[in-house]
Amino acid sequence: MDELFARLGIAAEMARLEEYIGGLIDSPVLLIAEPARHILTAGGKRLRAMLTFLSAGGNGRPLPGSVVYAAAAIELVHAASLVHDDLIDQSPHRRGRPTIHEKWSHDAALLAGDYIFALAARAIAISGDIRVMEHIAEAATAVCEGEISPVDQVEPLEESLAAYTFKIGRKTAALFEAAARVGAVCGGCGDGEVESLGYFGYALGMAFQIVDDVLDYIGDERTLGKPAGGDLRRGLITLPLIYAVAYDDGDGFLRQTVDRLGHIADPREIDEALRRVQASSGPARARQEAERYQKEALQHLHAVDGSRRDLLAEIARLVVEREY
Amino acid sequence: MDELFARLGIAAEMARLEEYIGGLIDSPVLLIAEPARHILTAGGKRLRAMLTFLSAGGNGRPLPGSVVYAAAAIELVHAASLVHDDLIDQSPHRRGRPTIHEKWSHDAALLAGDYIFALAARAIAISGDIRVMEHIAEAATAVCEGEISPVDQVEPLEESLAAYTFKIGRKTAALFEAAARVGAVCGGCGDGEVESLGYFGYALGMAFQIVDDVLDYIGDERTLGKPAGGDLRRGLITLPLIYAVAYDDGDGFLRQTVDRLGHIADPREIDEALRRVQASSGPARARQEAERYQKEALQHLHAVDGSRRDLLAEIARLVVEREY
Repeated sequence: MDELFARLGIAAEMARLEEYIGGLIDSPVLLIAEPARHILTAGGKRLRAMLTFLSAGGNGRPLPGSVVYAAAAIELVHAASLVHDDLIDQSPHRRGRPTIHEKWSHDAALLAGDYIFALAARAIAISGDIRVMEHIAEAATAVCEGEISPVDQVEPLEESLAAYTFKIGRKTAALFEAAARVGAVCGGCGDGEVESLGYFGYALGMAFQIVDDVLDYIGDERTLGKPAGGDLRRGLITLPLIYAVAYDDGDGFLRQTVDRLGHIADPREIDEALRRVQASSGPARARQEAERYQKEALQHLHAVDGSRRDLLAEIARLVVEREY
Repeated sequence: MDELFARLGIAAEMARLEEYIGGLIDSPVLLIAEPARHILTAGGKRLRAMLTFLSAGGNGRPLPGSVVYAAAAIELVHAASLVHDDLIDQSPHRRGRPTIHEKWSHDAALLAGDYIFALAARAIAISGDIRVMEHIAEAATAVCEGEISPVDQVEPLEESLAAYTFKIGRKTAALFEAAARVGAVCGGCGDGEVESLGYFGYALGMAFQIVDDVLDYIGDERTLGKPAGGDLRRGLITLPLIYAVAYDDGDGFLRQTVDRLGHIADPREIDEALRRVQASSGPARARQEAERYQKEALQHLHAVDGSRRDLLAEIARLVVEREY
């Protein structure tokens, strides 16, 4: 990652971000501090922070100090939402480590998530810009809405796609949008550029989440840090599955599996469904949809200052081509 | 309440607060919007908002618009924390109505709490004052710390009192402190007055929580909206119990009950313990401690502008003398 940050001209900002986040947890209450540190030091791509820095200008140009706190706030809201998502989904692992509710307790995960969200508010206060607060608060409500909105059907196709798009738009893309907007605001962009970068971030977030959902089916366990098929096992309907049912489910096996998703006792049935989705056109069709969002994202960059454009386009490429 | 608000000269602000909070939930996601509306319309004393308005000046003087949003943010953080507290404590009722996790689901309570916390962030953004953000973010981290910090012993007395004081200081008093501080900030107070009002709010919050814990033992079911003894039933150690063990537990019955708190199968044993605490000097001693905090609160008012002082002293009296 360090090489990438250097190439994008945001190495100094990234280092300051990590330093700030690393020193943030000052709670004397160990049952809060330890779980919070566990998730905040678990690595992660810091993609949202990169988006903030590059939207602010990046590219080696000096950035205002506020942008580091704004980026930190975005990453903290993201981390808080992961802790609560994992609790809701009862996921045992995250980035190859046990989740907080597994390692500590349900209550620790609930309150560590709340605590990290409050740390995000603290970071925003230090950024000193009320517009940063506006954009992040907006995204934070959307993240909650997305998390609880179900995708509970694969047919009819149009309705399933609408439910999936609504869910990932709120759960993921809204925070990417906010990441770009707060970067643009801190970097002194005018209203038009803030808007364009917001749309860019949103489309990029959609592409990111779809690729994530594809990798959950076809990714390599070593690079993913978890076995493939986790979404299916947890009963979550995502785009590769929706497309597999729509285009490659001749004997109706997947359709039947989906009807009973969440109530399947025999793991071999899930394994068989996983193999069928992997062998179907579902993952490739989903990836095409991610590429469509990537193109849409790039179109919004036309209205953006040239020095920002190339590096943001590179981020968009990385998001769609990544394998983990 | 309306009479009280009129007498304190904050009726207009209170009406604007209710109007703002009532119109805040605009989510199309019913599984978020309905639970959120359920808790936000459940009434409540709005004591923290009163504290904000009176710290800002109140008393019929026109207040800046920002103060309504600051007060709303305080009430929203409070509501969010109640939703998550009830989830952790598995409380079935709140203000005579079923709690969110009872009426909907665990996940709905988790995300509705997150959502309301995000609405608080939105209200702060509208207030337009970054210092409001600072104080509320500080309090929000403290609330999480307080909620998870245990009081798991009644002996030795000094240690139990220290654990209890730490817990309620963070869980309750920190937000009272923030309520007073943001009011003072919005009302244009100087640094010294902001500090004094903050200390006043903190001491008032301590008194409030102790009275709450006393009423949980000796309150009337009709005015409380729930049967007495809820804390004991849920295994929570509070000040009346700590004092009852220290001063009125000749045969050691309460001491033994506490050792097995949370593992008591026979409800008659809890009922007997409840009767013994009620008959002990514990509740009265705890109330004396609340009165000590009330006096401490009043002392901090010496440094405060005279027009604010009388009404804030009245609030302090209401908090300690209330019966529900």
